Amino acid sequence: MENFTFHNPTRIIFGRDTESSVGSEVRKFSARILLHYGQGSAEKSGLLDRVRAALSAAGVTFEELGGVVPNPRLSLVHEGIRLCREKELTFILSVGGGSVIDSAKAIALGVPYDGDVWDFYSSGGRPKDVLPTGVVLTIPAAGSESSPSTVITKTEGALKRGFGSGLLRPRFAILNPELTYSLPPYQTACGAADITAHIMERYFTPTRDVDFTDRLCEATFRSIVYNVPKALDDPNDYSARANIMWAGSVAHNDLLGTGRAGDWASHGIEHEISGIYDVAHGAGLATVFPAWMKFVVSKDVDRFAQFACRVFDVEMHHFNPMETALGGIAALENFYRRIGMPVRLSEMDIDDSRIEEMARKSTQDDAFTLGQFAKLTRDDVSKILKLAL
Amino acid sequence: MENFTFHNPTRIIFGRDTESSVGSEVRKFSARILLHYGQGSAEKSGLLDRVRAALSAAGVTFEELGGVVPNPRLSLVHEGIRLCREKELTFILSVGGGSVIDSAKAIALGVPYDGDVWDFYSSGGRPKDVLPTGVVLTIPAAGSESSPSTVITKTEGALKRGFGSGLLRPRFAILNPELTYSLPPYQTACGAADITAHIMERYFTPTRDVDFTDRLCEATFRSIVYNVPKALDDPNDYSARANIMWAGSVAHNDLLGTGRAGDWASHGIEHEISGIYDVAHGAGLATVFPAWMKFVVSKDVDRFAQFACRVFDVEMHHFNPMETALGGIAALENFYRRIGMPVRLSEMDIDDSRIEEMARKSTQDDAFTLGQFAKLTRDDVSKILKLAL
Repeated sequence: MENFTFHNPTRIIFGRDTESSVGSEVRKFSARILLHYGQGSAEKSGLLDRVRAALSAAGVTFEELGGVVPNPRLSLVHEGIRLCREKELTFILSVGGGSVIDSAKAIALGVPYDGDVWDFYSSGGRPKDVLPTGVVLTIPAAGSESSPSTVITKTEGALKRGFGSGLLRPRFAILNPELTYSLPPYQTACGAADITAHIMERYFTPTRDVDFTDRLCEATFRSIVYNVPKALDDPNDYSARANIMWAGSVAHNDLLGTGRAGDWASHGIEHEISGIYDVAHGAGLATVFPAWMKFVVSKDVDRFAQFACRVFDVEMHHFNPMETALGGIAALENFYRRIGMPVRLSEMDIDDSRIEEMARKSTQDDAFTLGQFAKLTRDDVSKILKLAL
Repeated sequence: MENFTFHNPTRIIFGRDTESSVGSEVRKFSARILLHYGQGSAEKSGLLDRVRAALSAAGVTFEELGGVVPNPRLSLVHEGIRLCREKELTFILSVGGGSVIDSAKAIALGVPYDGDVWDFYSSGGRPKDVLPTGVVLTIPAAGSESSPSTVITKTEGALKRGFGSGLLRPRFAILNPELTYSLPPYQTACGAADITAHIMERYFTPTRDVDFTDRLCEATFRSIVYNVPKALDDPNDYSARANIMWAGSVAHNDLLGTGRAGDWASHGIEHEISGIYDVAHGAGLATVFPAWMKFVVSKDVDRFAQFACRVFDVEMHHFNPMETALGGIAALENFYRRIGMPVRLSEMDIDDSRIEEMARKSTQDDAFTLGQFAKLTRDDVSKILKLAL
């Protein structure tokens, strides 16, 4: 196990009707905020009106900035930064899923920063200060509600890049599973694929002797495998929605990655896919991960066999662990198919025409390798994308 | 699943040599502190000298108060409160295990409080303010390093009582598994028993539909079952010590109890045992829990069967789940025996002479019941203690 620091001060407020407390939660930090949201579902459902009323009742005034799209855009982030500066807003409340939260974090980063906020995404760096943020979550998927990370897309150049800082963890996150009842099945499944990917990026590690966090990862994964089909069968199944929502948050709050190196190559590859093709992040991951697994399985057959046995109850073939390992990958593909996810790029109408471009961009022309479990070159990425076709 | 709020802002600093950062961590909060510790093992090992040097190097001055005993005493807490007030100390650093940390929390509670700090333990209440605390942990067991709770013993009346408040979570906890190499086998095993008890108090719940946290509990328990015998075989096994230490902390940081009622009857009963007989808390729990389980198993055979199958790989007897459930209890007893724990009161030379007294005190003369999974009367507690003989 590696040395680590774990510090997750986000206050999780979980359960039915919890969004009614949003006004008093926000008021602890600010009386003048930006209300940030997406493309209309929170408006249609009435959630936004409830949030507006709760803010007003708590004496919080707000400016609004909606229109965040999946793969959230730098251009809207710039608009949010201008708005916060102009109106002297000191807190950002996101109502939505990972895209809205990531966009809010980018604005929070940009407001006190003198340069272009894209600098952090393109070159890293340590922010001195950020605006505090809070969340009313509507999609369990990205885990951004208590994570330190944000991913933004710059349309010029189709660049999708991430950045992380402990300062960016939201101060509070309100998670009401009932708000996810109205999610369409495809979006529920994309969220599930994203959650499983967050687990696997941590699970497939070169770090040895991480028994405890291995088991936490497996537990979280199994709960997703158990509950997502139930939520698809009955969208108003509170128990299924609640277990998915909490598991989705824990999957990405860093606990599962404590003391172990994460991989994150599949996320890097998927960012190139959704950067160019604007597909849902979760769907992209469901196509990349099985291909990545087939490409790297021989690096550590035991770990893949453990995954197969403990997550999917694949039988252990003691004289042929590779058979078990491959059985686990097949079981993962079956799970994704069962919940309605694509497992091949071709199912999203993506062909091989831009594979080389994606491989080049993901490694910045072979300037660096991707991943820790295996260190992938540009050529490896290209092979994985071909396996995913 | 029940509604919940989860907020654990303790910064965990985990790994080899991490105690060298204690000076700079403390200095973030105070330059004038109380250094609190136990009966000599941290002195003998040289740890206390390293901590003193690190504090001095960071410009932190300190007063010392050692001598905390297992089942920490109110009398020393009073001494600590006096010392902090007199010397105007504004932070308490614990070097030790749960007893030292609990004692420090009690001092932290008492310093800004006008009345006797015992009020909180005897009657509850909401503290307005507490001193901040930090921890260098030497025993993985109590989980007090990031929990909101503290247990103190008042020798007059042999009263052992607990209190909890979010304000009492330490600001940071330094966890270096190497510091646990020198723990005697019995203490390692007592810690393990305490950790498993913290998991079971949350696992055996009347709350339905808590699949995700069930699995987190099982994962944590399995890691203890796997790693503790390894640490007993080879006390310097870093991996085993590290997995136990982190699992022990997570087992009691409240994550495993999110969205579910805990039971805590066995802790209540054990407090009466160690309050009178001054036995190690973990050993007391190892004798109470199997008895409690036998007494309540019929309340929810399915949950006990799930525990048996998922934690101890007991075969599921589909036509006789009780057989499986009882198999799980037997497996737990075997595990405790294997690591050198007593599983009967008689193994600690405790007879039936004070059972009625303990039953009476634990329920305050039948003024209230103990536990949530089953609500135990004074008579029930008496029966459980007899089962444990």
